[in-house]
Amino acid sequence: MTRQANRTRRPFVMADAVSVLARTPATLDALLRGLPDDWVTANEGAETWSPFDVLGHLIHGEKTDWVPRARILLEHGDARAFEPFDRFAQFAESEERTVTSLLDEFAVLRRQSLRDLAALQITNADLDRRGRHPAFGAVTLRQLLATWVAHDLDHIVQISRVLARQYADEVGPWRAYLRVIGGTDA
Amino acid sequence: MTRQANRTRRPFVMADAVSVLARTPATLDALLRGLPDDWVTANEGAETWSPFDVLGHLIHGEKTDWVPRARILLEHGDARAFEPFDRFAQFAESEERTVTSLLDEFAVLRRQSLRDLAALQITNADLDRRGRHPAFGAVTLRQLLATWVAHDLDHIVQISRVLARQYADEVGPWRAYLRVIGGTDA
Repeated sequence: MTRQANRTRRPFVMADAVSVLARTPATLDALLRGLPDDWVTANEGAETWSPFDVLGHLIHGEKTDWVPRARILLEHGDARAFEPFDRFAQFAESEERTVTSLLDEFAVLRRQSLRDLAALQITNADLDRRGRHPAFGAVTLRQLLATWVAHDLDHIVQISRVLARQYADEVGPWRAYLRVIGGTDA
Repeated sequence: MTRQANRTRRPFVMADAVSVLARTPATLDALLRGLPDDWVTANEGAETWSPFDVLGHLIHGEKTDWVPRARILLEHGDARAFEPFDRFAQFAESEERTVTSLLDEFAVLRRQSLRDLAALQITNADLDRRGRHPAFGAVTLRQLLATWVAHDLDHIVQISRVLARQYADEVGPWRAYLRVIGGTDA
């Protein structure tokens, strides 16, 4: 493998972003499909989210957040703020659903999102165009699309962390070696 | 989905553990196969590990850690300490390898590990049997096997975190919403 000098950060590149985004449905499918229900609804206590809740959140994002916001930005610039994103929509929308049906729906929606993204024919110059976030104010299209990528990965982190912590007591003294359980993010 | 009362912890159950362990190769495959090389060798600076390094570490674990330690425990109890695990073996062993070949090898080794685990015909009573860890001293077979599960998930967390942080600068103001970048584990 080649080793570049700075391995901790990289500039946004559309082809890379699409490569990561296209992988997320299969990654979540491998991790969650067929897993016992008790694991899929595991959480970190109180109002924290389970893998099931996260799937619903990702589905809601495909419908209302990423491509819809890119369209608002490209059509209206900063003259029109994005719709606020509902971080709790999944609790009503996912009721009575199964994890299988959520995984299937997310895969379909993500494929469509990436087709829609390609159809926008975004140029490098477009990436600097600005829109308006309802809380932050000015944001660029580059920031929106980079966030889409990091947001996917953040939720893969979250799901894996929730699952790992199910055995926080059962690992005994090994908790000292498991950052996800005993470490700084515990 | 059913909702149990305590969703944050669960007791070790062999069938659950196998269900999680069997998923890891496909999860990593979905996440990493075909990803641009620069992403696979991304890290968090200095001596931190890249996804490529983690794959080598997981391979080394299949060869020398989990099932081999279970065998030592079942054969020798606490009379013989486990071999210390070499956390840096992958740096020599993975040189000149490709991520594709590491993913393939890990999948083969994990399938064999789970066949070997099944062949041990571990009973619930066996789970309480004790072995000796070179650093911690007494550990049970239950703790060893629960750690195998949590260790897989911990490294999925790590790989996803390393990838997400590649865009730590590119996400702009959204970093405030991305725990993996702006949060307590940053």
